Amino acid sequence: MTDPASSRPPIDPKAIRVPTGLRDLYPADLNRLRFIQDAWRTTSINFGFDEIDGPTFEDADLYAVKSGQGILNEVFGVFSGKDPKERASLAAGGDAPYALRPEFTPTLARMYAAKAGALPKPTKWFWTQNCFRAERPQRGRLREFYQWNCDIIGDHPPFADAEAIATCIALLQSLGLTSQDVRVKIGDRGVVEQLLMTAGCDYYRVADGVRFVDGRSKLSPAEQARIANELEIDLTAYDEFVAAASKLTPALLGSGNEGQMSVDIHQSGISASVENEVFYTLLKLLGEAGVADWCDIDFSIARGLAYYTGMVFEVHEASGAERAIAGGGRYDGLIELFGGPPTPAVGFGMGDVVLSLVLQDRGLMPSDEVISERLGQRPDVFVISNGTPEADAKIEPVLAACRKATPSAPGLHARRSYKTTKNVGKLLQDASKAAARCALIIESGTAGQLKNLDTQVQRPVLLAGVERAVRAELLAARSAHNAAGQ
Amino acid sequence: MTDPASSRPPIDPKAIRVPTGLRDLYPADLNRLRFIQDAWRTTSINFGFDEIDGPTFEDADLYAVKSGQGILNEVFGVFSGKDPKERASLAAGGDAPYALRPEFTPTLARMYAAKAGALPKPTKWFWTQNCFRAERPQRGRLREFYQWNCDIIGDHPPFADAEAIATCIALLQSLGLTSQDVRVKIGDRGVVEQLLMTAGCDYYRVADGVRFVDGRSKLSPAEQARIANELEIDLTAYDEFVAAASKLTPALLGSGNEGQMSVDIHQSGISASVENEVFYTLLKLLGEAGVADWCDIDFSIARGLAYYTGMVFEVHEASGAERAIAGGGRYDGLIELFGGPPTPAVGFGMGDVVLSLVLQDRGLMPSDEVISERLGQRPDVFVISNGTPEADAKIEPVLAACRKATPSAPGLHARRSYKTTKNVGKLLQDASKAAARCALIIESGTAGQLKNLDTQVQRPVLLAGVERAVRAELLAARSAHNAAGQ
Repeated sequence: MTDPASSRPPIDPKAIRVPTGLRDLYPADLNRLRFIQDAWRTTSINFGFDEIDGPTFEDADLYAVKSGQGILNEVFGVFSGKDPKERASLAAGGDAPYALRPEFTPTLARMYAAKAGALPKPTKWFWTQNCFRAERPQRGRLREFYQWNCDIIGDHPPFADAEAIATCIALLQSLGLTSQDVRVKIGDRGVVEQLLMTAGCDYYRVADGVRFVDGRSKLSPAEQARIANELEIDLTAYDEFVAAASKLTPALLGSGNEGQMSVDIHQSGISASVENEVFYTLLKLLGEAGVADWCDIDFSIARGLAYYTGMVFEVHEASGAERAIAGGGRYDGLIELFGGPPTPAVGFGMGDVVLSLVLQDRGLMPSDEVISERLGQRPDVFVISNGTPEADAKIEPVLAACRKATPSAPGLHARRSYKTTKNVGKLLQDASKAAARCALIIESGTAGQLKNLDTQVQRPVLLAGVERAVRAELLAARSAHNAAGQ
Repeated sequence: MTDPASSRPPIDPKAIRVPTGLRDLYPADLNRLRFIQDAWRTTSINFGFDEIDGPTFEDADLYAVKSGQGILNEVFGVFSGKDPKERASLAAGGDAPYALRPEFTPTLARMYAAKAGALPKPTKWFWTQNCFRAERPQRGRLREFYQWNCDIIGDHPPFADAEAIATCIALLQSLGLTSQDVRVKIGDRGVVEQLLMTAGCDYYRVADGVRFVDGRSKLSPAEQARIANELEIDLTAYDEFVAAASKLTPALLGSGNEGQMSVDIHQSGISASVENEVFYTLLKLLGEAGVADWCDIDFSIARGLAYYTGMVFEVHEASGAERAIAGGGRYDGLIELFGGPPTPAVGFGMGDVVLSLVLQDRGLMPSDEVISERLGQRPDVFVISNGTPEADAKIEPVLAACRKATPSAPGLHARRSYKTTKNVGKLLQDASKAAARCALIIESGTAGQLKNLDTQVQRPVLLAGVERAVRAELLAARSAHNAAGQ
């Protein structure tokens, strides 16, 4: 009965804090997250996506397959404290057998590959859970955060690409953001390859060129010049092509040549002609979906191109002040990489942290009260006693009757005050503060008054079957509200 | 541009499986979990609880404070792959700095302690997230699972105890379980202490006696006899007291002495008198809440008594075939242990795994279709073209118009077929298979037919503003449904 580890120094519980970059979510904090998750879920379902989830940690190899062993230095390792082999391997300087998911895509690819034959074409999946990154926390970047993923697997470009982008924009729109607040920057790996080649890039090293463009912002100007020279890229010409192409808009393209995107760029004495029918059709589809005014063409968007194969996009706050709100693209090789059949796929991810900052900055995060109502948290009835012993004794039985779920109806949200006061006026104030729809003031062992707190209309009720009176009152109020909204 | 770790053996992606004891949740699997979480959330809100969440992993010390350093051999360790100090500590045979939460209570206690002064009394919190245990998976026991916690902090027994138990029972009831299917076994540490002392336990070693009773089932009979002898407990008498007391029912007690529980047990020539007013009042309150018929008195329930201080309870499937569905009790010392002020508290936890097994065994897990409808996943409208080019070209714009959220209404759930067939009959079958409420058959560039698939009534509509026609159709259907349900 003695603790074998009692020789360790005692722990001071007051010194234990929430781990760096992770969050304590008290009710109002969690409600703001639930509000965002609710919007994610509603948009996903409206666009015909089905929700999935996978394990919170995976075999570390799953992430190494996609990103190389180096990824294991960027994630949180996980091991069983009970497993002597796993402990021994760590003591020998090895990696942990598992890793907390830094993203969901490898799990999605593994899950799709495992059941590819049995899944519909296309398969449209969404996901709204948490990810973990072993990074230094910064504004817009935490070590644990929530992410929304939407993926369309088994459908070819550009139809699915347009659907993915439209889904992402619909979410932003449903939260009150406009095309003035945020911009969707759309690029394409194929077009970047064409621009690179026109700028002189060695034909056999275009893949290296794309990787160079992707990681370029992290390199010094001297280093950039060195690699560009090695790959025979005329960097000045390349940058001018990108700048010129980025000035194009979907609307401009739509009025040009039908059926293909053909843009002639004359800069620095070199002329680049970008032809890409798929990209052109994508822009046309975005117009049909009514979202072309949210989109800019931007061939500097490169998002880890080892993984993306066609269209890539990023959503940014218009001023460019914050990190990307969302990003995604086409990844036609990934399902195969994870052991599945060759399968085209496109998807995107959106985190909760930057999105929340943008909503707050723009005054679009609703108040606690509005979120609480939106999430269905308003009490249906607040039960009050008039202070007599017969009435006091009825509070609990009435609460129980109201909260009881029946096969035909869920229980009601019924609250009471925990204060000792018997002042009915003060208790009614409590009911209003809790945003209750009705108050039931018990006046005897058998009867009371049911007061609609939205209309202030009050009427006598019997306590027997009072839950039915409350339901009828709420239904009448809802019908009146619907009629007014018609 | 070369991978420094490329000398490792290549990974075979097909060999990577979901980690042992964790789950891949495809849409129908996840919907069953969401169905349970939805019921947890509804019951919690109906009983006036607010939702919170904390970090998925905590400082390992947080768990050691509550359960001793030994707990670190039972949990998953977590460390940053980026932090050389954390890696070095593990290489030196140390523990990981963090642990995946095996339960939520230590986080709840830390969060309450950090803001105790600013929180209402009582504070009623619920939680519905995932926990992790480094155990061998068995029936009803996984390494990652979801758990529902409800806690009432800052309120004294027995009022809050009765509310916690009633909340737990309301959830079971809302899922269709009855008092024939599951039993709530209620015990009390104070009563166990009285029974132990009457059975001769050394007065100064009653705490050791309780710990012995708690862990007793894991000991051999010889070991049990040795410790009982050391603590001066007459084990035969003790067992007979427990058996006799367990035959009592809340109803029986209610008809006895008012205001206190006083039970005389005469067994083995020794007479035990159990007096406990708080426990008696608890049973009376459970009667008022209308749940006494779900409850049994069972003083063999002991649930890690180092942590619980008064009432303890467990919910079991009636036949006793499965592990506990839920368990909880009063833990008046825990908030203080985590650095907060002395604060009474009571709560319980319920996992998703055993609950799902019990619902499935009893035929109470709804079908995929019913769950999908319950979760609001039925498509509002399924958009079909009559196969002409003008109609085909209108599918995407109509989908976009329907899905668009406005400030006064969320977007509609609008689907289309991805099949190449132009047979309207087959496409209507697709719409029915997707359980869509309406089908919109586009017949030209400007008009179509809106068919209510529940009533089979069809009427002509214009495509301009068709989303308003769909909304009106759905609202009329809902009003008819509400009227019928009255």
